[in-house]
Amino acid sequence: MNTPVTSKQQVHGALNGVRVLDLSQGIAGPFAARLLGDHDADVIKVEPPHRGESGRRLAPLKTDAPEPEQSLLFQYLNWNKRSIALDISNTLDQRTLRALIERSDILIESFRPGTLDAWGIGVDVMLEWNPRLVITSITNYGQTGPYAHYEASDLTLQAMSGIMAISGQVDREPLKHGLSQSYYCAGLTGAYASIMAYTAAQQDQFGEHVDVSIHECLASELVLNESYYAFLGAVQGRRAIVQDPFAGEPIATRKGFVAFQTGGGAPFETFAELFDRPEFLEKRFTSPPEREKRVPEVRALLEECVADREAKEVFLAGAKKRLLLGVVQGASDLLQCEHLEDRKAFATVSHPATETELRLPAELAKLSLTPTALRRRAPRLDEHRDEVLVELLGPSDNKERV
Amino acid sequence: MNTPVTSKQQVHGALNGVRVLDLSQGIAGPFAARLLGDHDADVIKVEPPHRGESGRRLAPLKTDAPEPEQSLLFQYLNWNKRSIALDISNTLDQRTLRALIERSDILIESFRPGTLDAWGIGVDVMLEWNPRLVITSITNYGQTGPYAHYEASDLTLQAMSGIMAISGQVDREPLKHGLSQSYYCAGLTGAYASIMAYTAAQQDQFGEHVDVSIHECLASELVLNESYYAFLGAVQGRRAIVQDPFAGEPIATRKGFVAFQTGGGAPFETFAELFDRPEFLEKRFTSPPEREKRVPEVRALLEECVADREAKEVFLAGAKKRLLLGVVQGASDLLQCEHLEDRKAFATVSHPATETELRLPAELAKLSLTPTALRRRAPRLDEHRDEVLVELLGPSDNKERV
Repeated sequence: MNTPVTSKQQVHGALNGVRVLDLSQGIAGPFAARLLGDHDADVIKVEPPHRGESGRRLAPLKTDAPEPEQSLLFQYLNWNKRSIALDISNTLDQRTLRALIERSDILIESFRPGTLDAWGIGVDVMLEWNPRLVITSITNYGQTGPYAHYEASDLTLQAMSGIMAISGQVDREPLKHGLSQSYYCAGLTGAYASIMAYTAAQQDQFGEHVDVSIHECLASELVLNESYYAFLGAVQGRRAIVQDPFAGEPIATRKGFVAFQTGGGAPFETFAELFDRPEFLEKRFTSPPEREKRVPEVRALLEECVADREAKEVFLAGAKKRLLLGVVQGASDLLQCEHLEDRKAFATVSHPATETELRLPAELAKLSLTPTALRRRAPRLDEHRDEVLVELLGPSDNKERV
Repeated sequence: MNTPVTSKQQVHGALNGVRVLDLSQGIAGPFAARLLGDHDADVIKVEPPHRGESGRRLAPLKTDAPEPEQSLLFQYLNWNKRSIALDISNTLDQRTLRALIERSDILIESFRPGTLDAWGIGVDVMLEWNPRLVITSITNYGQTGPYAHYEASDLTLQAMSGIMAISGQVDREPLKHGLSQSYYCAGLTGAYASIMAYTAAQQDQFGEHVDVSIHECLASELVLNESYYAFLGAVQGRRAIVQDPFAGEPIATRKGFVAFQTGGGAPFETFAELFDRPEFLEKRFTSPPEREKRVPEVRALLEECVADREAKEVFLAGAKKRLLLGVVQGASDLLQCEHLEDRKAFATVSHPATETELRLPAELAKLSLTPTALRRRAPRLDEHRDEVLVELLGPSDNKERV
């Protein structure tokens, strides 16, 4: 199936004409807002003066850059946005915020529950200012419930949500996943929920409050495990220590690891062909119960087959034969991956304060007629104050507060 | 911040009036379609006759249920949908499919790239039938590029996308995450991209093709690692074997594991109070570099502190003091979690063929005015044939094909 040829010339992204205020901090909220910006929403980042939002201090840091522009992660999470610095706990700046809210469709925030209320600008107040506004809150444990005010991090949320309990191997402690995937998952959820609520607001003329709990986003992923428990009385645990080497255990090659599985588009016997080893035609290898009886032997043969080859080369040869396998790719492999390259999955963006160019993943979904685009790098703190105020409020309003 | 009280009575979900055809199979596509259904879209599942889609055979299975209704996972991925069985490779059933497409807004499919074209119903044909249709394809490696036709699974995609390389510990092989999170992540992406394209189609009157690659969704999560590589020339690897026990390593209690971290809302000294152990006021514990010099000693003290307590009890006591910590919860803990209970994160749904009731996570985002709802359990294969055909096509059309 190919991308269709259409008669309409592409002129804009899917969310052209939608304005988003991003008051959020860190990863999840900014990522949600950026996804909307990637689809051409006008995203205005409202940050605290002086140091900006906390995401400007997230590692990795480029310490030779000036202070509020050191975080590399911030660059990734905030392109396609403009920045204005406002102290929204302060009533004077709240007048500016109100003017922005009156001209916006979606507001994303990630303050501790109760913070906006304490500043006198809770959801009720914002909906009075703009009854069609969608307000999306993305927080660790959500807006309500007994844990709503507890401290949390990616690691503690992975623990609390059941992800950690089933990751790793049974002979070791539970393992955390790499990176901050809880936050990215919640960011995706925040993006889709915001757009759903926006769709309803367009139809009904009523905005609403969207409450995303990172804890719940993760707990929802544990469905299979919960099903086992509720339905069968059994619980999926971490992986067995010794298992069929064709169940995906990474096998070391001369360069890199490769993971093999059965169940692809070719019969098991195809491994004999791939490795030029007739042993893989014998029942002691073709039969899964037989393989499980002699795991060390199978593993040794497999290791021998790939010892002189590179993981990528084994992958390509096997994949062309419709076998199911994968290379354990690291960052450098990904940046050189011919498939991602061919699909233009990465984009290059300049750091605002140095000459450095960054190559980063830039597209999660390809829309044929209204494509995503990296239209601008992440903003410097307060970079667009004048532009935003003049464009939204007219030439004379609030210019005294620079 | 509380959910706002509004004057408008809630009557429907956010996507009320939107019709979705779900032609997809397995996890990612059906999950995307279900998210739209949870927000009140009318989702019609079009499945192959006789055995239904492949998701009906996904473990865990309830083997005492009749055949196409054995999969428990299917129940979770397909509630809020109706089912009609059509052989869409067959020109006669394609007439019915066309009639459904003409009356729908979004179509989600997950066939191997090229399959729909081979059946004569590619994206171009569908857009001719309904120029406002959004067609979302969710596939392993996307629609284009050299790997587009390769076999893949959750495990091989985790390997290929860089997730596996940074999970686990440095002294062991790379580790796969628990469950099929690549598919859920792609499902979230498919849902938001579909709605964005739908928003554009409403405005422009032009539908389009949305191409979601599961591989890319995962590779995008590796941003931090790619940044390190591109920017600093360093690569984040798997975790060190020996690290500060206050960096989140799960610690065994009398019942369950608990993970501790510093950096919460309370100073480190609060641990002295939590455990009634003045040692935690001493510099050898309060200073991170000092702790790292004596990891076994710190770990032993921490283990001693929790040996006679339960993980949940330690968590609650610590969280109330604004310390940062988490219990490694399993499925049974989650089903009993008072916070998820309070937030009504789970719903109970009946199995269609047995008396069994299933308790499953049912909401990823709470919309205040247009809430999600579990309106119907997953359909039996072809359960809504007559209802769908009469409702969409009128009383007499296509009734001969039952």
